[in-house]
Amino acid sequence: MEANIKKLDVFFNPRSVAVIGATKKVDKAGHVIFKNFAANKMRRVFKGELYPVNPNEDSILGFKCYHSITGIPEPVDLIVIIVPAKIVPEIMQEAVAKKVKTAIIISSGFREVGNSELEEQVVNIAKQGNIRLLGPNCLGVFYAKTGVDTLFLPETKVLTTGDEVVATPRPLAGNIAMITQSGAFGVAALDYLTGRQMGISKFVSFGNKCDVTESDIIHYLLHDKETKVILAYLEDIKYGREFVKITRKVTMKKPVVVIKSGKSSAGARAAASHTGAIAGSDKIYDAAFEQAGVIRARDMEEFFDVGKALAMQPPALGKNIGILTDAGGPGVMTVDECEIQGLTVEHFSEETSQKFQKLKEQGTILKIAATSNPVDLTGSVTDEMFEIAADIMFQDKDICGIILLGLHHMPGLRERYIDGVVEISKKYRKPIVMCDIGETEMALYTRSRFDKLGIPSYSSPEDAARSMRALVAYGAYLQKNGCLEQYIEDFLRNTRKA
Amino acid sequence: MEANIKKLDVFFNPRSVAVIGATKKVDKAGHVIFKNFAANKMRRVFKGELYPVNPNEDSILGFKCYHSITGIPEPVDLIVIIVPAKIVPEIMQEAVAKKVKTAIIISSGFREVGNSELEEQVVNIAKQGNIRLLGPNCLGVFYAKTGVDTLFLPETKVLTTGDEVVATPRPLAGNIAMITQSGAFGVAALDYLTGRQMGISKFVSFGNKCDVTESDIIHYLLHDKETKVILAYLEDIKYGREFVKITRKVTMKKPVVVIKSGKSSAGARAAASHTGAIAGSDKIYDAAFEQAGVIRARDMEEFFDVGKALAMQPPALGKNIGILTDAGGPGVMTVDECEIQGLTVEHFSEETSQKFQKLKEQGTILKIAATSNPVDLTGSVTDEMFEIAADIMFQDKDICGIILLGLHHMPGLRERYIDGVVEISKKYRKPIVMCDIGETEMALYTRSRFDKLGIPSYSSPEDAARSMRALVAYGAYLQKNGCLEQYIEDFLRNTRKA
Repeated sequence: MEANIKKLDVFFNPRSVAVIGATKKVDKAGHVIFKNFAANKMRRVFKGELYPVNPNEDSILGFKCYHSITGIPEPVDLIVIIVPAKIVPEIMQEAVAKKVKTAIIISSGFREVGNSELEEQVVNIAKQGNIRLLGPNCLGVFYAKTGVDTLFLPETKVLTTGDEVVATPRPLAGNIAMITQSGAFGVAALDYLTGRQMGISKFVSFGNKCDVTESDIIHYLLHDKETKVILAYLEDIKYGREFVKITRKVTMKKPVVVIKSGKSSAGARAAASHTGAIAGSDKIYDAAFEQAGVIRARDMEEFFDVGKALAMQPPALGKNIGILTDAGGPGVMTVDECEIQGLTVEHFSEETSQKFQKLKEQGTILKIAATSNPVDLTGSVTDEMFEIAADIMFQDKDICGIILLGLHHMPGLRERYIDGVVEISKKYRKPIVMCDIGETEMALYTRSRFDKLGIPSYSSPEDAARSMRALVAYGAYLQKNGCLEQYIEDFLRNTRKA
Repeated sequence: MEANIKKLDVFFNPRSVAVIGATKKVDKAGHVIFKNFAANKMRRVFKGELYPVNPNEDSILGFKCYHSITGIPEPVDLIVIIVPAKIVPEIMQEAVAKKVKTAIIISSGFREVGNSELEEQVVNIAKQGNIRLLGPNCLGVFYAKTGVDTLFLPETKVLTTGDEVVATPRPLAGNIAMITQSGAFGVAALDYLTGRQMGISKFVSFGNKCDVTESDIIHYLLHDKETKVILAYLEDIKYGREFVKITRKVTMKKPVVVIKSGKSSAGARAAASHTGAIAGSDKIYDAAFEQAGVIRARDMEEFFDVGKALAMQPPALGKNIGILTDAGGPGVMTVDECEIQGLTVEHFSEETSQKFQKLKEQGTILKIAATSNPVDLTGSVTDEMFEIAADIMFQDKDICGIILLGLHHMPGLRERYIDGVVEISKKYRKPIVMCDIGETEMALYTRSRFDKLGIPSYSSPEDAARSMRALVAYGAYLQKNGCLEQYIEDFLRNTRKA
C-alpha cells in the first residue's frame, strides 16, 4: 500500500481514537459521536482503543476521560474534534505533540463563514505534524465494518405522539461508496439509500476539505475492495487538474457518479456561503468531468438511480436497446426517453423477428403482440412469455441492453417471472434494468425482489431509460480506453460468484 | 346542463347498466367487471339496475342473465361490452334497437391492430342510434361515488408464498381527474396515486377514442364540481383545433396537465401499434399545448408531482421564489433547479434583510445562518425558527412562492413545525411546496403530514422546484388571460373552507 493510501486508511481503520470535546450532555454532538464509538466498542465492532477528551470531566459513559490529548498514555491514530472553531488550533498543536496521524474536524465556523485565516492556521499546524485532516465543517466518516461512526445526527426521533421513529438510519453494508461535500446531503443520502435497500461500503463527508480533498478520497477508494461504485456530491473541485488526473485512473476501474451543485449563478452564490465553494463555470466542470470519465447526474434521483444501475449491472457494449413490455403506453414512454438520451431502439434483425413470428404461430405469445422493438406482450402477458421473450432479445447481437417493463397489474402475470428473468440474464454479458409502476404492495414487492436479485428496478419508465443510458455511456468510455472487456470480466466474476 | 354534457354524464351516473359478455369464468374480464358492479350494487354504492348479458347463461352471481340486450325489459342507459371485436357490430345493432344511451367498448382488436374498418362500422352504427361510445381498447370508467367500475385488472394478487397483496388498488376519493389513452398507464397511475395518498375524482381510460375524445372528456370535466385538476396521458390528439379551443376554455378555470408520449420517431412508431395513434411532430404538440394553456410534463414523475402541486396550492403571481432550508447542499440544488426552470432566487429586499438581521441580534436564529435567499437556518434549526422565517418570507412582496426544505435529520427539528408552517401559509395567498429527503420512517411521516395538511411534499429538491415552476407557469397563463384573481379567489375558498 503506498504511503498516501496507508495514511488515509487510518480514517477507516484506526487502532485508537480520541474524541476531543466528548461530553455527557445528551444532545451535544460531542456526546453522540463518543457514544457511537462507545456502543460500537461494547459490541466489539470497534476494536480499537477509545479515549474521551474533555478538561472538565473525569469519566464519560464509563470511559476514563482525559483532560488533554497529551495526557493519553498510549498512541492515538485518529482524533475527532468537536470543539468551538477558535480552540481548534490549540487542539491541533497538542495533536502534533502527541504524533496523532489523522484528524476529523467536525466543528464549523471556518472558511464557510469567512474565517479562512483560522482554517489556514489549522492546516499549517497539521502539516508540521504530518497529520491528515478531514473537514472542517463536516460529518466525517461512517464505516460499519470497523465501527468508525462520527455521524452526530440522531438515529431516531420521538414524535409528539410518543412514537420513536428512524430519523438518520445507519446504512446497510454494500458496495457503493458515498462521499459528500455537504453533510446534510450526506445524511439525506444515507436515509434514501437505506430506505431503498442500497448498501454502503464507506461514507465520507469532507466539508471544507482544507486538507483531504475529493481527489484524495476517490484515489483511496480505487484501492478499496469493498467499493464498486463511487457516488460523489460536490459543490466545487479543489484542484481541477489533479482531480481529472486521479479520477481518470479510477474511472477505468470503477464508475464515479457525480452530482455537482452550484450550477447556476444564484446556486454558486448559495454554495459559497455553504462550504465556501468557488463554483466557477459549469461548462468547465462539464469538460473536466468528461475528461475524467465521470458520469454526471442531472438531479438527485438520477444520481442514486445511476449508482444503483452501475453497482448491479455490467456496462453496455453499444447504444441500441431492446424494450420488453406488457404495457403499451409505458413502452412508448421508454422509447421516447431512450431517444432523448441518445440511445436507439431499432427494429430487430430478420433472425430475431422470425423467432418472434414463430412464437406467434405456436401460440406461445398472442398474435396481436407487437414484436418489432418494443416487444409489447400486452395485458395478456404471462410469466413464461416474459422469460421466453427476454431470452430471444438477449440473443440478438444488435441488442446491447434490455429495459424490461413488468407492470404487475396484468391479470396473468405472477411474480414467478422475476426469478426466471434473473436466471436468463445471467447467461449473458449484457445489462438489464426493469421498471414497474405503482406505490402499493405488489409494485413494491416486485421492485424489491428484482433489486435483491441484482436487476435494478425503477418506478418510472424514464428513470429506467436514464439508468440504461449511464450503462451505455460508461461502456463507451471504457471501450474508448481499451478497458471494457477487462472491466466486464471483473464485474461479472465479482457479481455472479455470489 | 347542455345536451352534450348530459349525455356524457350517463357514463358516470347511469340509472341502468348492462354488461355484455358477463360470464361466470373467474379470470375473464367479463366476470371481473360484472362482479365490480354486482359488489357495488350489494353495498348500495351502485344504485342503478344491473343486467348481465350472455346467450349461454341464465344467471350470473345471482343476477338473472339475459341472452341479448333487447331481451332486457327495462331501459338501459349504459352498456359495457367485453366480447370479441368481430361481434361488436352486432351488439351495437341491438343497442341501437334498445335505445341505449352510452357504450363502453372494453374489447381490443380494432384500429390498433389495423382493423380500422371494423371500428368505423361500429362508430357508424352508434351514430345511427345516437349512442356515445367510449373506447374501444380501453379500461373505461372508474367513479367511486356511483360505483361505476369497469376496471378488469385484479385488485389483489396471491403470491406463491400464499400472501394476498394489493395489485391494482381502487383510488381514494379526491379532486384529481385522471384520463388516459393507455389503459396500462391508467392502472399504473391509480396504483401510484393510491400509494401516494392522492385522491381521484374520476378516472377515464378512452383507448382508441373512436367517438368520445380527450376533448369531450376534458370539456365534461370543466363542469364537474369534484374535479380541480385534470391529468391526461395522451399519445395523440384526435382533432387538434377542437382540442385547443375546448381545452383553452377549461384551463382558464382548471389546470390541465398532460404527458404526451410518442415524442420521438421510434416512440411514435410504438404508439401507432399501441392505440393506433398518429403522433405527428412533437413541436406541433408543444405549440398546441401552449395555446391551450396546458402544462406539459416532461416525464411520469413530473406529471404526478405537478398535478399534486396544482391540486393543493394556488398559482404564483410571479417567478421570484424564496427558498428556506436547514440543509445547505440541498438548498443549493434547489436554487440550481429553479434557475434551470426559468425561476429566479433573488436577494431579499432591504426590509426583509433587516428583519432577519434583527432575528440574529435577538438570538432567535444563529448568526452564521445565511439569510440572503436561500435562508439557510443550518443544522441548528428548530421548529420555531422555521415558522418565524417562513412568515417573514411570505410577507416579502417580491417573493411569489416558497420552497421549504425541511430535512428532518437536524437534531433540534421536531415535527411540530409542520402544523405551524401550514397555519402561517394560510394567512397568505402565495404557494408553498416542501421537500424532505429520505426513505425511512421520519421522512415518510414528514412528507405525508405535509401532504395531508395541504402543502405538497416532494422527495428531492429538483422535484419541488419543478412543481413550483408549474405553479408559476400556470399563474402567468391565468394572469395573461385576466383570470388569475378569480381563480385564486375560488381556489382558496374551496381549499381552505375544509
